[in-house]
Amino acid sequence: MTARRPAVVLLSGGLDSSTVLALACEQGYATHALSFRYGQRHAQELQAAEHMARALGAERHVVATIDLRAFGGSALTDAIEVPKGRAVAQIEQAGIPVTYVPARNTVFLSFALAWAETLQAEDIFIGVNALDYSGYPDCRPAFIAAFETLANLATQAGVEGRLRLKIHAPLMQLSKAQIVREGMRLGVDYAHTSSCYDPSDEGRPCGACDACLLRAKGFAEAGVADPLLQRFAAR
Amino acid sequence: MTARRPAVVLLSGGLDSSTVLALACEQGYATHALSFRYGQRHAQELQAAEHMARALGAERHVVATIDLRAFGGSALTDAIEVPKGRAVAQIEQAGIPVTYVPARNTVFLSFALAWAETLQAEDIFIGVNALDYSGYPDCRPAFIAAFETLANLATQAGVEGRLRLKIHAPLMQLSKAQIVREGMRLGVDYAHTSSCYDPSDEGRPCGACDACLLRAKGFAEAGVADPLLQRFAAR
Repeated sequence: MTARRPAVVLLSGGLDSSTVLALACEQGYATHALSFRYGQRHAQELQAAEHMARALGAERHVVATIDLRAFGGSALTDAIEVPKGRAVAQIEQAGIPVTYVPARNTVFLSFALAWAETLQAEDIFIGVNALDYSGYPDCRPAFIAAFETLANLATQAGVEGRLRLKIHAPLMQLSKAQIVREGMRLGVDYAHTSSCYDPSDEGRPCGACDACLLRAKGFAEAGVADPLLQRFAAR
Repeated sequence: MTARRPAVVLLSGGLDSSTVLALACEQGYATHALSFRYGQRHAQELQAAEHMARALGAERHVVATIDLRAFGGSALTDAIEVPKGRAVAQIEQAGIPVTYVPARNTVFLSFALAWAETLQAEDIFIGVNALDYSGYPDCRPAFIAAFETLANLATQAGVEGRLRLKIHAPLMQLSKAQIVREGMRLGVDYAHTSSCYDPSDEGRPCGACDACLLRAKGFAEAGVADPLLQRFAAR
């Protein structure tokens, strides 16, 4: 028996990253899940990440604290109001949303790279998706490819050719409905994922922010009830 | 009179980055100096950075806290011993030193990018140098070029073509002696910069670590006494 190869998986605790973690586990990696405390206005995201890392059998889960608030610039970390009640078509056409965090995926991937280098891991997984939500520049294939190039120039192992770093974005070309179906196949318990930008203190999704609306559309198109909503409806 | 253009300058408080800050100020930028509290074993670096930001007239100085210690991997943040008393030729031939921090410049530049995006700044300055100390993979021209490519794919302004992000590494091809001469021309007060990996509590350099030895070689070749040593000799 050979040891499982290590991989770093960015895990926000949302639907997409939880599905990616399940995929990486299925592919036989020893998964090292990485979440960030970056001045989020709510704690549900990190609680969900911790729950999902444990439930899906991650080898290790680290929450790194960073502070992008010092630079300002987004509704997710500033006091700007989260947009509510927009139609999905409106969300998709609106371009880059105010919930954009400056350079967020660049920062997150750079931390993942630091951990990967320490682990001597070649594989980094990220749950970005270009189809259902193309407003973010750092969710596109060209960005992921550029980061992969950078990673192999930035690291001792990459430069020496001992490791070939690879950024996996397995959801890139999937619709939200396809992601949901893939997650159901893998047994991801979506009742404990958190997508909402503005949940209640107990984690009840607002149902009206862009993230809630896109999630609802995905479950509707997949023909599946969202277990998270069922969990709260049952109360 | 037009407003000065903003630039983000990575500032460790050492000789190189202080010289870069002085250069950016000379070029007329409104400089936004960025330092990191990343689990350094000594506080002198940040004190020096704060002193130099003020002395050189930075518009603003931010110290961002990040924690690379969660991932381990370097003498600068772990308990591994800092090598002492190596000959300069030995340092240069030794390859990547144990003081290497995994993916450090990738992490630092990603934070600089986040700040630049918030400021709508096109210019990021970093004091990397390929000649006198080529052991670090993330100090080479290919790495800087790859990060610049990434920056323009990662950001709203880059993607929309409103801003053209540029990573300036003005020391890249200079010897340590040339950097010292450039700094003297710019009036950088090197007495308050900190390069040592293992200084005393009051900031006295050890004189034997790689950083001290390379600094000493630079001042020697420039034919200048190091004001930092004079400051401590005078006590």
